[in-house]
Amino acid sequence: MLVTVDVVIFTIRDGTLQVLLVRRKYPPFKERWAIPGGFVHDRETLEEAALRELREETGVSDLYIEQLYSFGDPGRDPRGRVVTIAYFALVSSARELKASTDASEAAWFPAGKRPPLAFDHDQILDAALSRLRNKLEYTTVGFQLLPRAFTLTELQRVYEAILAKRLDKRNFRRKMEILKVLKPLGDVRRSGLKRPARLYVMRRTKFEL
Amino acid sequence: MLVTVDVVIFTIRDGTLQVLLVRRKYPPFKERWAIPGGFVHDRETLEEAALRELREETGVSDLYIEQLYSFGDPGRDPRGRVVTIAYFALVSSARELKASTDASEAAWFPAGKRPPLAFDHDQILDAALSRLRNKLEYTTVGFQLLPRAFTLTELQRVYEAILAKRLDKRNFRRKMEILKVLKPLGDVRRSGLKRPARLYVMRRTKFEL
Repeated sequence: MLVTVDVVIFTIRDGTLQVLLVRRKYPPFKERWAIPGGFVHDRETLEEAALRELREETGVSDLYIEQLYSFGDPGRDPRGRVVTIAYFALVSSARELKASTDASEAAWFPAGKRPPLAFDHDQILDAALSRLRNKLEYTTVGFQLLPRAFTLTELQRVYEAILAKRLDKRNFRRKMEILKVLKPLGDVRRSGLKRPARLYVMRRTKFEL
Repeated sequence: MLVTVDVVIFTIRDGTLQVLLVRRKYPPFKERWAIPGGFVHDRETLEEAALRELREETGVSDLYIEQLYSFGDPGRDPRGRVVTIAYFALVSSARELKASTDASEAAWFPAGKRPPLAFDHDQILDAALSRLRNKLEYTTVGFQLLPRAFTLTELQRVYEAILAKRLDKRNFRRKMEILKVLKPLGDVRRSGLKRPARLYVMRRTKFEL
């Protein structure tokens, strides 16, 4: 059997949750978009393989990454039996990414508005979305998508982008207070004519990942 | 690369959380205890392979089973590169199990008092324990270890066995009320000289797995 890793790479761009896809140059599924991934090398761990793919696709490797699930249905790859260990990675919107590789065309797509994917990659991406949304409820996973210091509005926008719905501002702020995960900084952010907004950092708590 | 599945099989016996282990007949790790598992066959899915192992070890296959995590460090098996997809299964204490196979000696061990295991199976078992304890907080996974109808005391004993600590009876019952997962039956259970205890079933809710 062959073993691959696939890495679902999320970021927030233009207020929406986006995912990095690569266009396949060769059959099977030639020209179709796919989740970036590749074969596990002989001397690397599964996580090292996932980090290598991530680095090749985005130019960065010091990111939040987590094993998602393994997919191994006999018919998922027409070339033979391939088991894939899927990971998901979160890239802060503050990072500069290349989002392109020498080997293939790569592009960001809104997670909810993407082309049909190669192999069982739609299933893998849906599993990643589902895990991310679930974890948002009981962990600080959402903070990985923000720069170190952020405003409450920026934080709410991340939650809204992941959940793909508007949240009530007062309920959201009350929830964050209950979780006790925010630490206010002395600094504020000024932008345009708006009132200066308080900056926060994440407080390390038991809700941490 | 070779691909196996390993299945961590939990049950509650004598008020403690127990795990099914098999003693290895052949090298490597000859005579050591291990989590039951084996190679994935060509035409079966990963879950089918896990259910097959489960059936071979316990005689039952209609059980709660969940994919846990994949382990694939290059040195984990001295015979070569073997990636294993680990699952965990929960067997209700009401089930009659054979807990033995033609192929190997099998036995139940308290999860916290077990012999050192073959390969990286200690790590796999610890990951399974950790997942089970976490899920207890926000799902109804614990109910899988009980018969369909149970008393509140039996339910509390399952939680205590998994968490390996005593729980306060009043706090526990209040928590169950908040979760709204219990549906009282008209029946009671009578045992010995004790007061008859109300029987409950699990209510299907959004906390369901």
